Amino acid sequence: MTRNKSPDLHGNAPDESPVALLLIDVINDFEFDENGGDLFQRAMPAATRIAALKERTAQQGIPAIYVNDNFGKWRSDFRNLVAHCLEEDRRGRPLVELLKPTDNDYFVLKPKQSGFYSTTLDLLLKHLGAHDLILTGFSSDICVQLTASDAHLRDYYLIVPRDCVASLSEEENERALRYMERVLEADIRPSTEIELTNVSNFISPSPSGRRLG
Amino acid sequence: MTRNKSPDLHGNAPDESPVALLLIDVINDFEFDENGGDLFQRAMPAATRIAALKERTAQQGIPAIYVNDNFGKWRSDFRNLVAHCLEEDRRGRPLVELLKPTDNDYFVLKPKQSGFYSTTLDLLLKHLGAHDLILTGFSSDICVQLTASDAHLRDYYLIVPRDCVASLSEEENERALRYMERVLEADIRPSTEIELTNVSNFISPSPSGRRLG
Amino acid sequence: MTRNKSPDLHGNAPDESPVALLLIDVINDFEFDENGGDLFQRAMPAATRIAALKERTAQQGIPAIYVNDNFGKWRSDFRNLVAHCLEEDRRGRPLVELLKPTDNDYFVLKPKQSGFYSTTLDLLLKHLGAHDLILTGFSSDICVQLTASDAHLRDYYLIVPRDCVASLSEEENERALRYMERVLEADIRPSTEIELTNVSNFISPSPSGRRLG
Amino acid sequence: MTRNKSPDLHGNAPDESPVALLLIDVINDFEFDENGGDLFQRAMPAATRIAALKERTAQQGIPAIYVNDNFGKWRSDFRNLVAHCLEEDRRGRPLVELLKPTDNDYFVLKPKQSGFYSTTLDLLLKHLGAHDLILTGFSSDICVQLTASDAHLRDYYLIVPRDCVASLSEEENERALRYMERVLEADIRPSTEIELTNVSNFISPSPSGRRLG
Repeated sequence: MTRNKSPDLHGNAPDESPVALLLIDVINDFEFDENGGDLFQRAMPAATRIAALKERTAQQGIPAIYVNDNFGKWRSDFRNLVAHCLEEDRRGRPLVELLKPTDNDYFVLKPKQSGFYSTTLDLLLKHLGAHDLILTGFSSDICVQLTASDAHLRDYYLIVPRDCVASLSEEENERALRYMERVLEADIRPSTEIELTNVSNFISPSPSGRRLG
Repeated sequence: MTRNKSPDLHGNAPDESPVALLLIDVINDFEFDENGGDLFQRAMPAATRIAALKERTAQQGIPAIYVNDNFGKWRSDFRNLVAHCLEEDRRGRPLVELLKPTDNDYFVLKPKQSGFYSTTLDLLLKHLGAHDLILTGFSSDICVQLTASDAHLRDYYLIVPRDCVASLSEEENERALRYMERVLEADIRPSTEIELTNVSNFISPSPSGRRLG
Repeated sequence: MTRNKSPDLHGNAPDESPVALLLIDVINDFEFDENGGDLFQRAMPAATRIAALKERTAQQGIPAIYVNDNFGKWRSDFRNLVAHCLEEDRRGRPLVELLKPTDNDYFVLKPKQSGFYSTTLDLLLKHLGAHDLILTGFSSDICVQLTASDAHLRDYYLIVPRDCVASLSEEENERALRYMERVLEADIRPSTEIELTNVSNFISPSPSGRRLG
Repeated sequence: MTRNKSPDLHGNAPDESPVALLLIDVINDFEFDENGGDLFQRAMPAATRIAALKERTAQQGIPAIYVNDNFGKWRSDFRNLVAHCLEEDRRGRPLVELLKPTDNDYFVLKPKQSGFYSTTLDLLLKHLGAHDLILTGFSSDICVQLTASDAHLRDYYLIVPRDCVASLSEEENERALRYMERVLEADIRPSTEIELTNVSNFISPSPSGRRLG
């Protein structure tokens, strides 16, 4: 857990970063009940933006953490889930293709809706030194909001780019964003308005250095 | 931790109960910023209903647990907080008078909004054998909802009587109730419609026996 | 999470069982510092007994859970770790060959010495309905004992078969066993003296039914 | 939670300190079974040293935290427990007189042996900014050791002054001290050899500044 001293982190996932990108339940076959198709339609445009954001954060050496449902398959690991979603005829396949993890990415399997409940996420974030979390994924009003709630209790600063989340209903999506902004003090600006150029400055314990521009 | 075999539990708080009544942040001086007065106005009618509900649950041997903010006073205990709120000229005094704890009641001081975060609440509920929680208190959209979220993750069944919670804004109160009903699967019927006569039947591990009538 | 009603569970890992077998840090390359070789020498005979015990428990439908260090490799999954340890020239290879997981086995990666700290183990055991834990693995005085301590706090009943654990020093191994017996109330009889024939009787919430014969 | 800037902290308990003194199960009536008297005999000399150490740490502005069993009395608060132990004829009375808490002290009621399990201790220590813990109290091989184990998992640095703990048996006391030194990396020097004069230097996140002299 030594700090990566390289001045050029482009393309590398460091072991230490004040910011982390969370991708919540993006590895998903969208094969659930009558609503899977509707959610997929809303999720696909957000996934395109998440992929673009992930490329930008990777260039800044910001680690990406997949925080994903295990679908109740306690014996599966993350790579199994990815492979399952990439099989032909899975509805979620094009989305998972867009957001396929690389070897540099981290992953946490969550048994419930919140990424913090009964997982190692909090300890992983402390290992990384991350205190600012960019939350993306699906659905905004359930797994994203419940993960954001637990993160807020633990004093993480939250950015939930409004174009990188989606829900089954646009109305619920809006309600969730407003709730996270009002109660959980999240920054909900669109991903394109997040400045990432000075991220190295964020390696600082002082509260004044804790905000992304 | 032996089960109380007495056929007549009226007036006693047993060590075992399938249901527990939670009173969230009701011990409150309402002396915070410009909004304390507005919240107090909305909270007072709910407090009257909570007091009536608490009398009914006590008659059925259902334990009451005060889950209360410590106001950042890490050295205080619960009785100090009650005494503080009962001092003359405190805005919250009439409300706290209504909901004053008895020696039979339990209490849990919470350092953050959720009653489960960094407290012994979950273990106390397991000690009691409680799996159905009646959540009451303030404010519905913050401490009640975040406590409900954590309870749902832990598989508790939730009843949030809509007349026993309040928020600074009626609109946010309604949104919180709908969210708890839709996402956290809470029963939000008014307190007067909760039947408590067959609570002894709820001492049952079977899912089919897990619901209040 | 429905109970497996099949009268013949032989060879299957059910989703529900009152007993679980834990294999602690057995997936290990034993390539650490000057002591790896010494620990390997002591661990190998225990591994042979663990393998025999695992065969017996599998026949009774008792699930096996690998609770394993992630070696600080936060991006690895369990199958990577197994593959790593099975590479040629790894000191631990013969031991890992003996204890290679099957597709029916569960696994939990632990970032610290205790299997409960910052992992999903407790929730997995609750999902399985397991309240009796058979702890095996290495080393008895560190990861086994610290996992046993956390299990005892959570009211699990512990069996630590004295022939299925090992430590760098026989003296510390004995001290750890005596500590777990005296303070953590563990049954430390040898694996060959554990009767597993009536395990189905253990599907019982009553304290009197909580003990293996 | 602002840092106390006063150069003279003597006699005050600050809200921020890199070091905290823990007093484990010292509020105790020693009225349990046949062994209470024996443990009391061994605990009394340690209590005298704890009292002296507490006076020194208080002069340096190091906060004292009572981490105490609730004796299964879930409705009691800490002051009740103190009052109970100070009643006439309680065996523990002289010891509790020596270690009576002041209004500046913190307290955490623990339902199980470890001070961290299902309590707010970890969050309180983070609120204080404490990363070095001086553990004192009874008994060394049970509640002190299990609290130390959980503290070590959470990366606290441990000092367990060997003259400030006691157990029912001197042999188990020695075993516990050696275990905490060997496995939990605790400093077990006697309390008189702990230098506290430069504690203000410890307000530093750097590992090199993390050790008491």
